[in-house]
Amino acid sequence: MATDIRETTGSQPKYKVIGSRPIRHDGTDKVTGRAIYGADVQLNGMIHGVILRSPHAHARIKSIDTSKAEAVPGVRAVVTCKDLADPGDRRVELGEGSIILKHLSANVLARDKVLYRGHAVAAVAADSVHVADEAAKLIRVEYEVLPPVLTVQEAMKPGAPLLHEDVFTDEMGEKSKQPSNVAKHFRHEVGDIAKGFAEAAVVIEREFHTATVHQGYIEPHNATAIWNHDGHVTVWCSTQGSFTVRQQVAELCGIPISHVKVIPTEIGGGFGGKISVYLEPVAAILSRKCGKPVKVLMNRTDVLEGTGPTPGSFIRIKMGADASGKITAAEAYLAYEAGGFPGSPVGAGAMCVFACYDVPNGRVDGYDVVVNKPRTNAYRAPGATNAAFAVETVVDEICEALKINPLNFRIKNGAKKGTRRVDGPVFPRVGMIESVKAIKNSEHWKTPLKGKYRGRGVASGFWFNCGLKSACSATVNADGTVGLVEGSTDIGGSRTGIAMQLAETLGITAAEVTPTVGDTDSVGYTDVTGGSRVTFATGWAAHEAALDIQRQMVTRAAKIWEVPAKQVKYIDGCLIGPEGKRFTFKELAAQINETGEPIIGRGAADPQQPGGAFATHVVDVEVDPETGKVEILRYTASQDVGTAIHPSYVEGQIQGGAVQGIGWGLNEEYFYDAAGTMKNSSFLDYRIPTCLDVPMIETILVEVPNPGHPYGVRGVGEVPIIPPPAALANAIYKAVGVRMTRLPMSPPNVLHEILAKGSSGQSR
Amino acid sequence: MATDIRETTGSQPKYKVIGSRPIRHDGTDKVTGRAIYGADVQLNGMIHGVILRSPHAHARIKSIDTSKAEAVPGVRAVVTCKDLADPGDRRVELGEGSIILKHLSANVLARDKVLYRGHAVAAVAADSVHVADEAAKLIRVEYEVLPPVLTVQEAMKPGAPLLHEDVFTDEMGEKSKQPSNVAKHFRHEVGDIAKGFAEAAVVIEREFHTATVHQGYIEPHNATAIWNHDGHVTVWCSTQGSFTVRQQVAELCGIPISHVKVIPTEIGGGFGGKISVYLEPVAAILSRKCGKPVKVLMNRTDVLEGTGPTPGSFIRIKMGADASGKITAAEAYLAYEAGGFPGSPVGAGAMCVFACYDVPNGRVDGYDVVVNKPRTNAYRAPGATNAAFAVETVVDEICEALKINPLNFRIKNGAKKGTRRVDGPVFPRVGMIESVKAIKNSEHWKTPLKGKYRGRGVASGFWFNCGLKSACSATVNADGTVGLVEGSTDIGGSRTGIAMQLAETLGITAAEVTPTVGDTDSVGYTDVTGGSRVTFATGWAAHEAALDIQRQMVTRAAKIWEVPAKQVKYIDGCLIGPEGKRFTFKELAAQINETGEPIIGRGAADPQQPGGAFATHVVDVEVDPETGKVEILRYTASQDVGTAIHPSYVEGQIQGGAVQGIGWGLNEEYFYDAAGTMKNSSFLDYRIPTCLDVPMIETILVEVPNPGHPYGVRGVGEVPIIPPPAALANAIYKAVGVRMTRLPMSPPNVLHEILAKGSSGQSR
Repeated sequence: MATDIRETTGSQPKYKVIGSRPIRHDGTDKVTGRAIYGADVQLNGMIHGVILRSPHAHARIKSIDTSKAEAVPGVRAVVTCKDLADPGDRRVELGEGSIILKHLSANVLARDKVLYRGHAVAAVAADSVHVADEAAKLIRVEYEVLPPVLTVQEAMKPGAPLLHEDVFTDEMGEKSKQPSNVAKHFRHEVGDIAKGFAEAAVVIEREFHTATVHQGYIEPHNATAIWNHDGHVTVWCSTQGSFTVRQQVAELCGIPISHVKVIPTEIGGGFGGKISVYLEPVAAILSRKCGKPVKVLMNRTDVLEGTGPTPGSFIRIKMGADASGKITAAEAYLAYEAGGFPGSPVGAGAMCVFACYDVPNGRVDGYDVVVNKPRTNAYRAPGATNAAFAVETVVDEICEALKINPLNFRIKNGAKKGTRRVDGPVFPRVGMIESVKAIKNSEHWKTPLKGKYRGRGVASGFWFNCGLKSACSATVNADGTVGLVEGSTDIGGSRTGIAMQLAETLGITAAEVTPTVGDTDSVGYTDVTGGSRVTFATGWAAHEAALDIQRQMVTRAAKIWEVPAKQVKYIDGCLIGPEGKRFTFKELAAQINETGEPIIGRGAADPQQPGGAFATHVVDVEVDPETGKVEILRYTASQDVGTAIHPSYVEGQIQGGAVQGIGWGLNEEYFYDAAGTMKNSSFLDYRIPTCLDVPMIETILVEVPNPGHPYGVRGVGEVPIIPPPAALANAIYKAVGVRMTRLPMSPPNVLHEILAKGSSGQSR
Repeated sequence: MATDIRETTGSQPKYKVIGSRPIRHDGTDKVTGRAIYGADVQLNGMIHGVILRSPHAHARIKSIDTSKAEAVPGVRAVVTCKDLADPGDRRVELGEGSIILKHLSANVLARDKVLYRGHAVAAVAADSVHVADEAAKLIRVEYEVLPPVLTVQEAMKPGAPLLHEDVFTDEMGEKSKQPSNVAKHFRHEVGDIAKGFAEAAVVIEREFHTATVHQGYIEPHNATAIWNHDGHVTVWCSTQGSFTVRQQVAELCGIPISHVKVIPTEIGGGFGGKISVYLEPVAAILSRKCGKPVKVLMNRTDVLEGTGPTPGSFIRIKMGADASGKITAAEAYLAYEAGGFPGSPVGAGAMCVFACYDVPNGRVDGYDVVVNKPRTNAYRAPGATNAAFAVETVVDEICEALKINPLNFRIKNGAKKGTRRVDGPVFPRVGMIESVKAIKNSEHWKTPLKGKYRGRGVASGFWFNCGLKSACSATVNADGTVGLVEGSTDIGGSRTGIAMQLAETLGITAAEVTPTVGDTDSVGYTDVTGGSRVTFATGWAAHEAALDIQRQMVTRAAKIWEVPAKQVKYIDGCLIGPEGKRFTFKELAAQINETGEPIIGRGAADPQQPGGAFATHVVDVEVDPETGKVEILRYTASQDVGTAIHPSYVEGQIQGGAVQGIGWGLNEEYFYDAAGTMKNSSFLDYRIPTCLDVPMIETILVEVPNPGHPYGVRGVGEVPIIPPPAALANAIYKAVGVRMTRLPMSPPNVLHEILAKGSSGQSR
């Protein structure tokens, strides 16, 4: 049940392919089980690898004795961190940002310490996975167990157990003389915050806690590698970025990137969690050691304990507004779990925290804090959901205090063209206010919510979106179709969205394009599928490839017609020459091989203005005051999607993101015991929402074209995860009068607040 | 023991990469058994297909009953010609020439008649190959057996059994009113042949017979196909041309080419025999019928009986020369076996027959004649070896009659720039005379041959080489290497020869290029690997891709230096800017991703002047007069190779071609019984030379650069097969005084001639 604002406003579609809903190119393969995922890779002579993981959350490794494992018949190789290249102290650029190589290396195979339960310590490859399993148990690791630290607040306390001896807070001129669990502290500031709060009629300050949650992709990690005798290694894996896997494997194994070929398989979800390598370098060095192809797979417990969830966090928000409802000042303290190694997404959280609003006076402090949990990783709009939960709850309190309709508050304060973010950038044309107005005009909002223990909440969210690099090539077939090779691994149907942009530029149909995701030897450098960048940037590269084809087809038509090329135009999928001369794309394609060389197009993109994405969600809930269980009655998500290339995919992204946000809001969390052992490391106990837990997510596509893209594309995938926890919190407040400041808002947590408040009645 | 004329003449190499001998990129994979050939393809759920073949050389198919086969448990699909698309009467262009589709279709699965023993009639796919084998035997085919016709002379006789009711000789205005086994007759003429012969001091006219021979590639044919539920089919196979397989499968199955994706595997030899499809459409329709991936493999008997050998032939040559040794006239009658369907390589034979010489008055008649043998196919310089055996023997007789040194005769009459071929084309700069002079100057020629029953023979050969279409793309990696995707399946190491040309243009090393053979969805249209075109045309495409990269790197360097692009030059692998600014390729490559979009190059080629290749071979033999066995004592092959990109490969091509020509000359033939059954359908009985049968083939690389290529490349692969049979025949004559006019010159055939001559002594 989706509404497309472009349709409702009656404007005519400018495009023929863009905005239509063709069948996805990978659809048949996926619904019939033909698609090849990483676990499906079968190679002649392939053997199986198993990872030995730490039983301790924090311990020093005193020694590792692999001799008994190596002696097991059928065991071909045993590796530890010693088999990886010496990482030194280098910081390397990994497409999405720089990283300290030794941290990545020690996360793949622990070096001196284990820093979380499930941390990989060694690996065994054997003729059967069962032999490898048994042999791994024979590896004797001598540990000196240390006390774990599991939350940012504990970790930041003076005297807390230290994870790293060589990590110092070194930003902001605050370089500490002592090692610290705070890996980084940074600050963004604008205006005069004291003056701003002084001008406020109302100031709200609250503290929030969010739990560690996992991306919950359905396909566990996998990697298969052959280290060839010529020193070249080929890796098959499920990844969001074949080129970043190439680089990481090369760096960790100490070989040039061109000696690594990564063949990306189909991918069963990533959401940010399949960017860092885990198994790929291990499979590679196991193969190097035994000369055979080695496959390594994770099970669900490995995934939950051994890969990067997104951080739990501690957040303090203080906001003030004048009597008219104009925000005068805002301050945020964001402390995010990095897990065992530095690198939480607190930086992105700080960019997003106040970005929905025009904040004249603001300050954001960000802290990246190591704790004895898995090294955190990106998860759909990384860092932003935590922050929005806090900010949007505080906004709701301000609206309540000032008796202002929360949508009107957002319209009044909403970011627009020219608004400066607290961290610096100034917005181009964006659709924050449009997304709010779309909710205001929605049938959902206009329908009053009635009934006891029921409440309606709204929240907004912002994600900046990424640009980065993309490349593709395209070849014209004699039957008037085009083969497209692109470098973005396809998680959410992107190959079709990219193909549609190529088709639009060429004036052919999406079905006439055959898109292929290339391996790292076969396509130009392309950054990760993440940051909501693929449809934007790789789509642009495809558009460039189409323009390259257009130019060559113009030249070819001119040659055939024996006229100057400047007399030929490419219009609407046709070559138009003088004196009524005309070829359709198909007609000219059929003549290419008879009239000259084959026509192939190349395209690359390095777009600089991805255009931010804004979303506003409204949710109706009913809370069971006896159990604290929250039931969602209705949910509508409005979003500025720039230009919806394939509206079904956009709706799917919004629905999927909203459901993940709902899971984060209501259910999901890592339960740890005091020793740092995760107690719910299966999908039975780590409870992500099922279709029984959510209603149909209604979507409203608001199209404010991105001026920084030839087709106005904005990334759409990330922002829909941001508003749900806050919208739910605000709805719960309306339903039962308690302000939730801790995620998840699971039945025990909600019930606890209800009981603490001493009230089980509806607040008003 | 190779000689490189460029070296011996003391000229300095112009190139850095071209002319060097880097390790082949596919070497490690091939020597370690890692390379994936068609038979190695394994797919989940894959089942196995088996072909039922005709036991008769000529029969009408009255009915096919597949019901018993279909009832066998484990059988998933049974197909006959009815499962292929109706081919109608269309003639289709297949890259290398046009073909009557119904003939191709009926060759893949017989329609109304079987036309040779081994002709495919039906196919079965089952869970195991053994079940499929058993089930195939249960297919009941009712045949009306017809008398076979096995040689061109029989087939051309009035009243001969007719293979086709609808084939008429229709060229030259001689359209017969009756169906005929002569599918085509054509004539090339130049000058006044009667006048030419009238001017001759000596005229020699002889008739020759050559046997049907097979390419003898070591890897049998194979195909694996998945027909997906969306109507798209993916085919893995060993082929010389992925795009021609795509087109043939599409045409035979009645689907657009873009619905077929061909993934070429590594290929264990083709020599022209892996261009036509045999198994690919059958695997496809079996898969369509059962919904599973189907693999079909041939064994050696299938290959010999069921795929295209090169034709046996009947040839009459008449040549005249004046007393000075100048050729005055030449006439050829070439009748080649087409096998069961029209399409022998007689056309190419007619282009080559007199092409080594300046023939002022000439006539060539070519006849394409159907016989009850497998449909013939290309085999290395198709058609030319047959013709050269005849012409070069006659030339030897003329030299003997005129008492002229055969090398001097060739220098006097040899084709050079401006010489017109009898079939029309006029030569650009070519190296016929240089190849002869190289032999004349060789240590081999200068070393007298002594001993009884020993003789030395020389012969020359010409192959026109092909151009056709090629495409590739290339991507620059941050470590200063380049990924190259090209469309030519690599039979003889071509990926390295192509990569070397890209490297030369970019000023990097061959090892810094990673070449990949792309599938039909991933690379631009590329014609078959054949006609000695790949290093020439695909190399040119790679050169174009390198130029495309050069242009972009110039622009990028200018951007970084903030100077106009026209002030930056790409020289010798470096970017040179004003005021001493300079980047090496590697330095700039490392900065690409930080300074703009990725750099990828595209290249395509449609070269028009492939440049003919000429070779002259000299061989010393000793004949055993008791058995007729010919032993090769020494063999030297000289060839104009244009520019030797990778001299080791060129030498390998010359050596391989010479050995195949030796096999053709001395041993190889299809033995048929009167019913048309091949009696030697295994490699035990079809005897190709082994390393014990031939000495080291010495090579002399003469480099006369092709003016029609940026690096002077000429195709080198085909011409070396042409001279050996004639050179051997001329050597045998010198050894034992008999003129061999029938191939092979196997011990029984040679002994027969010796006995017929009534002489076992050396002739002089």
